[in-house]
Amino acid sequence: MNEKVRRIEPRRLKGFRDLSGDVVSARERMIAAVRAVYERYGFTPLETPALEFVDCLGKFLPESDQPDAGVFSFRDEDEAWVALRYDLTAPLSRYVAMNLNDLPMPFRRYQVGPVWRVEKPGPGRFREFYQFDFDTVGSASMLADAEACMIMSETLEALGIARGDYIIRVNNRKVLNGVLERVARGDADGGGALDPAAALAILRSIDKLDKVGIEGVEQLLGRGRKDESGAFIKGIELLPEQIRLVRDYLEIRSDSRTGLLSALTGLVEASTVGREGLDELRQIDEALTAGGFSADRVTFDSTVVRGLEYYTGPVFEGALTFEIKDDDGQVRQFGSVFGGGRYDELVKRFLGREIPATGASIGVDRLLSALTHLGKVSTRTATAPVLVTRLDKTLTAEYQRIASELRDAGINAELYVGTQNIGKQFQYASRSGKVACIVMGSDELGRGEVSIKDLRLGEELSKDVGEDRKRWLEQQPAQATVPRTQLVEHVRGLLRKWG
Amino acid sequence: MNEKVRRIEPRRLKGFRDLSGDVVSARERMIAAVRAVYERYGFTPLETPALEFVDCLGKFLPESDQPDAGVFSFRDEDEAWVALRYDLTAPLSRYVAMNLNDLPMPFRRYQVGPVWRVEKPGPGRFREFYQFDFDTVGSASMLADAEACMIMSETLEALGIARGDYIIRVNNRKVLNGVLERVARGDADGGGALDPAAALAILRSIDKLDKVGIEGVEQLLGRGRKDESGAFIKGIELLPEQIRLVRDYLEIRSDSRTGLLSALTGLVEASTVGREGLDELRQIDEALTAGGFSADRVTFDSTVVRGLEYYTGPVFEGALTFEIKDDDGQVRQFGSVFGGGRYDELVKRFLGREIPATGASIGVDRLLSALTHLGKVSTRTATAPVLVTRLDKTLTAEYQRIASELRDAGINAELYVGTQNIGKQFQYASRSGKVACIVMGSDELGRGEVSIKDLRLGEELSKDVGEDRKRWLEQQPAQATVPRTQLVEHVRGLLRKWG
Repeated sequence: MNEKVRRIEPRRLKGFRDLSGDVVSARERMIAAVRAVYERYGFTPLETPALEFVDCLGKFLPESDQPDAGVFSFRDEDEAWVALRYDLTAPLSRYVAMNLNDLPMPFRRYQVGPVWRVEKPGPGRFREFYQFDFDTVGSASMLADAEACMIMSETLEALGIARGDYIIRVNNRKVLNGVLERVARGDADGGGALDPAAALAILRSIDKLDKVGIEGVEQLLGRGRKDESGAFIKGIELLPEQIRLVRDYLEIRSDSRTGLLSALTGLVEASTVGREGLDELRQIDEALTAGGFSADRVTFDSTVVRGLEYYTGPVFEGALTFEIKDDDGQVRQFGSVFGGGRYDELVKRFLGREIPATGASIGVDRLLSALTHLGKVSTRTATAPVLVTRLDKTLTAEYQRIASELRDAGINAELYVGTQNIGKQFQYASRSGKVACIVMGSDELGRGEVSIKDLRLGEELSKDVGEDRKRWLEQQPAQATVPRTQLVEHVRGLLRKWG
Repeated sequence: MNEKVRRIEPRRLKGFRDLSGDVVSARERMIAAVRAVYERYGFTPLETPALEFVDCLGKFLPESDQPDAGVFSFRDEDEAWVALRYDLTAPLSRYVAMNLNDLPMPFRRYQVGPVWRVEKPGPGRFREFYQFDFDTVGSASMLADAEACMIMSETLEALGIARGDYIIRVNNRKVLNGVLERVARGDADGGGALDPAAALAILRSIDKLDKVGIEGVEQLLGRGRKDESGAFIKGIELLPEQIRLVRDYLEIRSDSRTGLLSALTGLVEASTVGREGLDELRQIDEALTAGGFSADRVTFDSTVVRGLEYYTGPVFEGALTFEIKDDDGQVRQFGSVFGGGRYDELVKRFLGREIPATGASIGVDRLLSALTHLGKVSTRTATAPVLVTRLDKTLTAEYQRIASELRDAGINAELYVGTQNIGKQFQYASRSGKVACIVMGSDELGRGEVSIKDLRLGEELSKDVGEDRKRWLEQQPAQATVPRTQLVEHVRGLLRKWG
């Protein structure tokens, strides 16, 4: 086989995407809006490499119970194992450990960028996706956690998501641990902490509440449960009275933050760690109230776990509460787009001592798809709304001047640089989302005139429309010829009309 | 050895960097300015994955004669060879080949992002670095190439680089090929094209002109040359009359584009491809002239080669001509920050037929370092210039209100969320580049007042200053106490003063 003439098939890795102009532009605008909120609170950017040593990343993948989960890793030329980062928190902890003496503390940074995971690709599930994190490292104060919740709330509102269409839910892993202590005792005296693996298994089951409902959680805590595919998931075999305790806990609800704290008190006050957790939530409530963040923006919710092993205190998530139809046509809430919490132990693996840290992360792609659904980002955007066509290629110098004139007036304008005829040029303009075409032949040039084609109106005209609308359309010709001196003004009018 | 208690050493891969806030912010502003120019001309964004199949990337690394050059590649879970992209052009050609029927043509996209190369790390030489490309695919018109040069010029000016401090240099590989044909003939009749490897070796030698000078190029074309380290680089053993032809060609200079074209005519008019190249340059000159881009912005330069094998027609580079001292203390021009050209064959490896394409790429890190050198980007920027301190932690709710007040007035303000005393809080403010601290105790709160500490003035005061300056400083106290109602106004004044 001759290598030279063999054609290569153009293809992309599974789970990876090419993102086209409208998506990239929309994401860019979203990122700019989020960045503005993070910066308003004093976070500064940081950028760490895509590649890290595997041992420096650690093993904190949230879904590590999933067989396909993993990282893209390989040996570098020195035979060391390196990997593409799977989140932005692990590199942050590596950075803090390397620069501890040079960083102002608390160190507050944001970072946005792609992360990579070897996951089974599926709808809305990719192997390369963006995260946008902010974290406060070096403060044990609950003020930092409360502020994280406020920032999540402000961020969603800055993106145009109305109050009521989202909610920030807060819980505390210490409260959960208090409940787990009680589960370990089986509500009797004696007992104490569960072993960490058992505790984690219970938390994982609780974390599935959204997906499987309260009965599903009870099954997972007991004998086990059949999932939709019919596969049997083995349970963790708790005793019925232990399961009842978890159920009692999960059913605690309150519309007010202080109400939830009161309701929880009876269940966890016997546990030192549980009391600590309640006290932390109390401090968070105070700061939220002082900041003017009422329970319709930030609420306390005992069912929030956040699957990650590394959270040690408050955990929070920002969920979108409006409903959508999922791929199976089922109506459900859009769900979580923002998640975070306190993770005081992440730098410990490097330094041997804890550095308190708290923060949150946006799932950028999910949030962008939510904004698209809500119509908060425009999907039809040509970066330059005007195409200056080249009807007569010998007049190219004139066309260049027209393009410059528009650009100098602040209107992004593309000069057609292809070689096709005018009909194809109009097609090109439509396909690339332009609003207007400028057309000029030698006659018009001689008369000092120029024609402007209204592409959107042209599209309307070619649709089947009712009589009234038809009359309206007929009064507005899809092409106007104006003196060259009125070009900019006329184009501005069109852009306003269709903007 | 117990794995659990072993501490991991925090470390970074060689050739990779962590970029801190000031650098990331400056780069972000630079990218926004460049993007605005690209969009003004109608380019739209595209984002391709970091990982690609190795065979889809092809082997177009510019420095493939360098033994360390290469890509980060590994086998994925299906045993396919994949690699981190080493530039943004190879993924573009893969994308175009995959979407040919759905893309408006000419397809004009820009892309910005990191690329990765296994290069020997050194000063200013990294294994992960940013590129910012724009390309026009699907047009054979020289208008697209001329426009690329105009965009390079406008981009550098948009970044604040004055006319005269930069130059866009244009050449044509077809002209070079015309010269090479003549070299092959040794100025005699007969002969014809050189074999591609020999032609490439000559181009590579010419490409080193900047580094080794004309004598160095002659040595490389002849017997060979000792480099600075004393190592002997074998030459390509051309005959003296062949070397003289190359030297004659390289010595052709003109301040005007048409002047250079005239001077070149005699040397290449006997070659078909050479004449074609001259004609293309002539068309580029016309478009540049019509666009108002004179030779002080875009010049023709017969010494420009651009090392990449894949260029097939016009090649161009944007160079900064102001002088800097390099690491050895030698004064030299800053050099190339922008490079590009026409590459009509890059999609061919997928489709078997040529798709004309032309474009250019910014070396983002090099350009950013040039802007920093010129003082065109600020390096001392706190994203939030104000720190609201917490002198008395029981007054936290009041401090939160002050921070909100400032933010609502459009002033980014950080609330101190750490647990340290006020002295450490001031240190923190200084280290993180703040301009002002807000301080309030219970007495001030009672009087409805607030104190504002001017950190920059505080720094001035602590320096050794002359008498005049000392008096001036004494008249401006570094801390002012004002009614709470005047807080925003006073802070604004400080920001203006030090902005």
